[in-house]
Amino acid sequence: MAERVLLTGFEPFDGAAHNPSLAAARDAAARLQSQGVAAVAVELPCAFTDAGPALRAALARHEPTAVVATGLAGGTDRVRVERIAVNLQDARIPDNAGDRPVDRPVREGGPAALFATLPVKRAVHRIRSAGVPAALSLSAGSFVCNHVMYTLLDAPAPARAAGFVHVPWSLEHRPSPSEPALPAEQLARAVAEAALAALEGGPDLDVPGGALH
Amino acid sequence: MAERVLLTGFEPFDGAAHNPSLAAARDAAARLQSQGVAAVAVELPCAFTDAGPALRAALARHEPTAVVATGLAGGTDRVRVERIAVNLQDARIPDNAGDRPVDRPVREGGPAALFATLPVKRAVHRIRSAGVPAALSLSAGSFVCNHVMYTLLDAPAPARAAGFVHVPWSLEHRPSPSEPALPAEQLARAVAEAALAALEGGPDLDVPGGALH
Amino acid sequence: MAERVLLTGFEPFDGAAHNPSLAAARDAAARLQSQGVAAVAVELPCAFTDAGPALRAALARHEPTAVVATGLAGGTDRVRVERIAVNLQDARIPDNAGDRPVDRPVREGGPAALFATLPVKRAVHRIRSAGVPAALSLSAGSFVCNHVMYTLLDAPAPARAAGFVHVPWSLEHRPSPSEPALPAEQLARAVAEAALAALEGGPDLDVPGGALH
Amino acid sequence: MAERVLLTGFEPFDGAAHNPSLAAARDAAARLQSQGVAAVAVELPCAFTDAGPALRAALARHEPTAVVATGLAGGTDRVRVERIAVNLQDARIPDNAGDRPVDRPVREGGPAALFATLPVKRAVHRIRSAGVPAALSLSAGSFVCNHVMYTLLDAPAPARAAGFVHVPWSLEHRPSPSEPALPAEQLARAVAEAALAALEGGPDLDVPGGALH
Repeated sequence: MAERVLLTGFEPFDGAAHNPSLAAARDAAARLQSQGVAAVAVELPCAFTDAGPALRAALARHEPTAVVATGLAGGTDRVRVERIAVNLQDARIPDNAGDRPVDRPVREGGPAALFATLPVKRAVHRIRSAGVPAALSLSAGSFVCNHVMYTLLDAPAPARAAGFVHVPWSLEHRPSPSEPALPAEQLARAVAEAALAALEGGPDLDVPGGALH
Repeated sequence: MAERVLLTGFEPFDGAAHNPSLAAARDAAARLQSQGVAAVAVELPCAFTDAGPALRAALARHEPTAVVATGLAGGTDRVRVERIAVNLQDARIPDNAGDRPVDRPVREGGPAALFATLPVKRAVHRIRSAGVPAALSLSAGSFVCNHVMYTLLDAPAPARAAGFVHVPWSLEHRPSPSEPALPAEQLARAVAEAALAALEGGPDLDVPGGALH
Repeated sequence: MAERVLLTGFEPFDGAAHNPSLAAARDAAARLQSQGVAAVAVELPCAFTDAGPALRAALARHEPTAVVATGLAGGTDRVRVERIAVNLQDARIPDNAGDRPVDRPVREGGPAALFATLPVKRAVHRIRSAGVPAALSLSAGSFVCNHVMYTLLDAPAPARAAGFVHVPWSLEHRPSPSEPALPAEQLARAVAEAALAALEGGPDLDVPGGALH
Repeated sequence: MAERVLLTGFEPFDGAAHNPSLAAARDAAARLQSQGVAAVAVELPCAFTDAGPALRAALARHEPTAVVATGLAGGTDRVRVERIAVNLQDARIPDNAGDRPVDRPVREGGPAALFATLPVKRAVHRIRSAGVPAALSLSAGSFVCNHVMYTLLDAPAPARAAGFVHVPWSLEHRPSPSEPALPAEQLARAVAEAALAALEGGPDLDVPGGALH
C-alpha cells in the first residue's frame, strides 16, 4: 500500500529523564507495522527553534500520507485529541535550548489558528473503543507541542490527514505517585488508533463533541 | 471623557434560573459609573442564532471604545480571561432556542480564530491585584460564549479593545453545594477590572502566561 | 434463602428536586430481586435528628443480613465505597430540618470511628468488573451520610456486613451540565454489586487500596 | 516560657530527592524562634517500622507542650490541617524500608481513630489570615503520614495540643511543572501558624467546617 504513517514524540524536558510520548509513538509504530501498515516514529527536540526544522525534515524524508504528532500533558488522566493549533508561543518554562518566548507567533503573518485535518471525533471514538480514556481538546497550549502542531498543519505540502495527540504520564515513568497516569501500553494503543483513524479517511463523525466553556 | 464601555452577560440557560455573568456585568457597570466611567450592561440571549444580532445591535447603539463580554463557566473556581475565539460551533447541549450545531463555523469563510484585543495579561494582573483568583485561558469552548467572542472580534468596526471573561458560579446562586463558586461581588469586581484594563490601553504585560499543554 | 438485603437512599436535600442515591437503591433492589435475592429499599430523611430513628426502624423491621446505605456525593465522578465513619457532625449547610450542628458527636461517648463491615475491596472490585468507575474512600464527610453510616455500624445488633456507598449525580438528573455524573443505570448496578459483595462473605481482598495522604 | 514546640517533617520518599515537609518544619522552627518561641524541628524516616520509634524518641527528649507533625500531600494545591487519624495501614507504594502493609492496624487493639487535639479550625483560620490557602481535612490517608499522626495522638503522655499538617509540593522543588505547588516560604509560614494555634490554647472556633461527603 502507498499509505505511510509518520508518528512523532518528544525528547524529555524540564529536567525529566523520560518522555512517555516518544515511547508511545515508537510502540505505536511497531503495532502498526505488525498490522501491515508502513509506519515510522521520529523523535523531536523539545525546543522552539529546533522542533520545526526536525519535523519538516521528517516530512520531506518520509512523505507520509498521515501524521500523528504526540506530546506529554502532565497532570491529565486521559488521552487528548487536539482540534486546533494557535499561532502563539508563550512559555511558562524554558524549552530545552533555554528559549522562553513570550507572546510571539509561531510564524509571523500566519493564520491565527489551524484546525487538525485528522478526523478528531473518529479518533476519539476509536481510542475509547480500544479501552483507553480519551477526550477532544480545544487547546494544545502555547508551548512546543502547540508549536509542532501548528508547524505540521502549516506545512507547504501537508499530509492528507494530520493531527496531534496529548498523552498523560505513563504509570511506569511518572515523576511522582500523585501524577495521574495510564499504562504505557494504553498510550501506545491510543496513538495507533489515532493513526488508523487518519488512514481510514472519510468525513468525521456527526456527533457533538464541544466544550461549553 | 469619550470612553464608553460595553459589558455583556447572558440570560440563564440549560434550565437554570440565574446566570451569574449577567449580574456580574450589571454590577460591574454600576461600579464603573460610580468611578466616572460611562458604562452600560446588556443582556444577550443564550442562542446561536440570536446572540450575534443582539450583540451587533448593542455595538451599533453604544459605539463602545471597550467591550468585555462575559459568560458562565460552570465547574471552574476562578475568573478566566479568554485569549482566543475559534470559528467553530459544536454544542453538547441545546441552546435556549433548541439549536445544537455540530462542527459548524461561526462565520462561513471567517478566519479559523481571532485573538482578543483586550490586553489579557494586564487584565489578569488587575483582577488578581483586586483579590480575585484569575487565570488566562486559551479556549472559550465551542458553545455560545465562544460564538459571541468570535462575533465581537469579527465585527466590521471593532472596539479599540475587546475581549471575553468567563466567570464561575456565584456562591449566592450556585445550583448545588458541590459547584465551585466565588462571591458575586468578586465576579463583578473582576469584570470591572477587565474593563479598566481595556480602557488603560498600552501594550500588554511582557510576562509569560502560557499553558504547557 | 435467609439472606435479606436492606438498601437505603436519601430524600432530596439542599433545595434539589431529586436524589440519585434513592433511585439507585430502589433500582438495585429490583435488580437483586430479579436474581432471587430478597432485597428492600428504604428512603431516609436527610436530617440529623430523623435519619437515625428511620434507619433503626428499618433494621428492626427487615432484620437484614447485609446493609448498603447510599448517599449523594456531588462533584465526584465515580462511585465511592466508604471504609470508615467518624463520630463527628459538622455541617456546612443546614439539613432538611434546618439543623446545622458544629463539631457535635454522632453519639456522645461513642468510639471516634467505626470501620465498615462490608468487604470494601471486594465491593470495589465487583463494581469495576461491572464496568462502573469506583474507588475506596477514607472519609464519608461529616454531614448526614456519615451520620447514617456511623449509626448503622453502631447499631446494637448489627447486620453481618454493612457499609456505605457514595454515588455521583446521575446524568439524567444532575443540576447543571458542569456537574460530573454517571448514567443512573450504572449507579444502580454499583449498589447491587456492593450488596452482592456483602452477601458473598469471606475475607476481604488482600490487595493494597490505601491513600498516600 | 515553659512552652516548647516540636515540629516534624519527613525524609524524601518514593525516589524523590526532596521532601518539602522537612524544609517547612525547619523554616517554621526558625520563624518561631525568632519570635521568642522555643521550637525544634526533627526529621522522621518515611517508614512504617521506624517512624514511630523516632517520633517517640523526639517526644521523650524534647517534652513538647505542642506538636505539629507535617508531611507531603502531592497533587494538592493548599495546606491541609488534618482532623483525624485512623488505625489503618494500607500502602499503595512501598515505604523507604520496602514495607508495604495491607489493611494492618497502626496499633493492634488501639481505637479505630483519634482526633487531633490541636484546635484545627483556629489553625486554618490563622493560616488563611497569613495569606496561605488552607483547608480542613477529614482523612490523612493510610500511609506513613497517618501512621505518624495516629502514633502522636496515641502517645502515653501526649502533648497538650498535637496535630498534623499536610503540605503541597513547593514551587521550588516540585518534581514536574504539572504538580500543583505553593512557595516554600508559604509552607513554612503555614506550619508556624499551626504551631501558634496550638500554643494559643482555648476552645476551637465555633464555625462550621465539615465536608458534605
